[in-house]
Amino acid sequence: MSSFTQEPHKLLVIPGPIEVTDEVLYANAHPSMSHISPDFIPVFGDCIRMMRQVLFTQDAQPFIIAGSGTLGWDQVSANLIEPGENVLVLNSGYFGDSFADCLRTYGANVDSVQAPFGAAVTPSEVEAALKAKKYKAVTFTHVDTSTGVLTDAQGIAAAVKRVSPDTLVVADAVCSVASEEIRFDDWGLDVVLTASQKGLSTPPGLSILVASQKAIKVFETRASPVTSYYASWKKWLPIMTAYETGNAAYFATPPVNLIYAFNASLTQLTKQAPSLEERFRLHKEASQRMKQAALDMGMKQLPLDMSVAANGMTALWFPEGITAADILGPLAKQDIVVAGGLHKDHKLKYFRIGHMGISAVDKNRADVEKVISALQASLAEAKASKNA
Amino acid sequence: MSSFTQEPHKLLVIPGPIEVTDEVLYANAHPSMSHISPDFIPVFGDCIRMMRQVLFTQDAQPFIIAGSGTLGWDQVSANLIEPGENVLVLNSGYFGDSFADCLRTYGANVDSVQAPFGAAVTPSEVEAALKAKKYKAVTFTHVDTSTGVLTDAQGIAAAVKRVSPDTLVVADAVCSVASEEIRFDDWGLDVVLTASQKGLSTPPGLSILVASQKAIKVFETRASPVTSYYASWKKWLPIMTAYETGNAAYFATPPVNLIYAFNASLTQLTKQAPSLEERFRLHKEASQRMKQAALDMGMKQLPLDMSVAANGMTALWFPEGITAADILGPLAKQDIVVAGGLHKDHKLKYFRIGHMGISAVDKNRADVEKVISALQASLAEAKASKNA
Repeated sequence: MSSFTQEPHKLLVIPGPIEVTDEVLYANAHPSMSHISPDFIPVFGDCIRMMRQVLFTQDAQPFIIAGSGTLGWDQVSANLIEPGENVLVLNSGYFGDSFADCLRTYGANVDSVQAPFGAAVTPSEVEAALKAKKYKAVTFTHVDTSTGVLTDAQGIAAAVKRVSPDTLVVADAVCSVASEEIRFDDWGLDVVLTASQKGLSTPPGLSILVASQKAIKVFETRASPVTSYYASWKKWLPIMTAYETGNAAYFATPPVNLIYAFNASLTQLTKQAPSLEERFRLHKEASQRMKQAALDMGMKQLPLDMSVAANGMTALWFPEGITAADILGPLAKQDIVVAGGLHKDHKLKYFRIGHMGISAVDKNRADVEKVISALQASLAEAKASKNA
Repeated sequence: MSSFTQEPHKLLVIPGPIEVTDEVLYANAHPSMSHISPDFIPVFGDCIRMMRQVLFTQDAQPFIIAGSGTLGWDQVSANLIEPGENVLVLNSGYFGDSFADCLRTYGANVDSVQAPFGAAVTPSEVEAALKAKKYKAVTFTHVDTSTGVLTDAQGIAAAVKRVSPDTLVVADAVCSVASEEIRFDDWGLDVVLTASQKGLSTPPGLSILVASQKAIKVFETRASPVTSYYASWKKWLPIMTAYETGNAAYFATPPVNLIYAFNASLTQLTKQAPSLEERFRLHKEASQRMKQAALDMGMKQLPLDMSVAANGMTALWFPEGITAADILGPLAKQDIVVAGGLHKDHKLKYFRIGHMGISAVDKNRADVEKVISALQASLAEAKASKNA
């Protein structure tokens, strides 16, 4: 291991990509390796095994594929849903709309339960919907990156089990894996789909999906052929099995360097201090510090209540009379990069701060404190200039 | 720019991934950046522009998407072909079978012209097939990585124009872009699809496709909806246009670090010496040195003739009595990694050597010479031990 240190740069505190460790970036600069090399195969195999640990599952099946998080929606839509089947999308923001769009592309009949802006769909709403109609799957966005709204994954899964135990429970957890606690087996989830560049603390470029054995069986017994090639589990399942058992198999060249980087990050998450449980606690603490400071500055969160507020990010309405230009520009001048709004209805009226991975966990970095004090300064300056 | 130097490692001379420069790997270790940062947008935009230069096209449309090269087949099948339309696949190895499989997944009627093992489909065979039946598209594998067979792209395109000018000409150029000359506009190609980890000299993880304006029009005027979500140009075209014109747009998070790495490599390919033309010449020279040396060692190429032999790789039959274990193991002991066979019919009877990118172009590395002398030593040793 060399003493690689990443270049000085602006602090990136958006809800993904996030700041990553030097070890992860150095692994991404690994010399070129054969994707079927005996040195590389266990690196990939260990990623599969460590992904199970991150989600506290014994036997669910991870898929690690070159692609953006979006590809996870295609994996669900193409492998688990057959044309004409009913899917219930719990919609708490931008990403619910998009998942529904993807499901329809593959022929699903989609119904949506729309949460009010800033709220999550509740388990009792899910119960009511499932009593009224049979669904092959229920999908929800665990943390909607556009609003910072956190959905009660455990409660939703329990509601589905009570009313319609056959129905698959699918969590879009792009913005929650490794920053929010997810107990795959205990909660009875069937799919957790995510990406590398948020809580998993790796550069973007990996679509990561974990499927329960029940979901795999649903896939294996489907009547109609899978209508995607690149997203087909028929192609990928033998590849994942091969790499996990120490063999190489070929469908498409894996993104070797990103797999090295992912392995470095998963090793830090699962084998080094702090533990996963401790990491979840540290994310909560960082989140509370950020949200309390925002409140003290007179800024309201998008989520209507702390119980539906994500721990890996904070979405804040601009105070009256303040715009994106007053906050985002001045923060960037202080070398701090936050994100603007994303939800189509309110895009220009709010902004978002990420506090995932080392920004939440490594207190020596004091990232949250840096953001808070820069925000205080920018806000004070903006108010002063408006009053002048 | 730091003085980053990649770790000492075995020389990787397989037909992709290939050895890449320190600058490319260092760019892959770029600190985390926002995908909509004003610093990142032109990095992505320049990749789009430089991709046109690599293929000598004025106005074709590049798509640069997180994924393996395989995703390019989905892009073609889902965007350009409507269910029930006829596609002619020119099959010169493993990858023709797979492209046909992908096309059928999306509902195409596929006919194949199968070249004899070690040969390419000829322009006159294409003419005959197009006279007998109307096809929406003709696809061919420019260099089949499984066999090292080079197809006459210019000749195929000319044949299509003569007989059926409406038919789209689609080149699977995963193993040829930047190691074989491709004149997109002059030859009248409609799609060139490739990946980052071969001639383009970047780590794997990018699906790169360039489509003619004619192909884009065919896509835009299709009657039926695109049946993929992640591979849909309806989603990606506005993103590529946005980044190229200096704006950000969001469909899926781009693989930011790989885009930095790709930019570093494209900059070396298009803006630094040697020129692209010179690079093609150097690939030919390296290829000839390798193939002549193999011949001198008594090894026959898979391609039946030098006119159908790729310049970026060499596929060789093991001599009588020699197996993979006699060659690949001893080479690895000399820190040289070559590839075994891939084509299902002859997998164990041959091996493959890559000589693309810096291994062909940077003569100071003397990669080809290292491989030749290690191969000579391994072969001599194997023969001696068989005779003993």
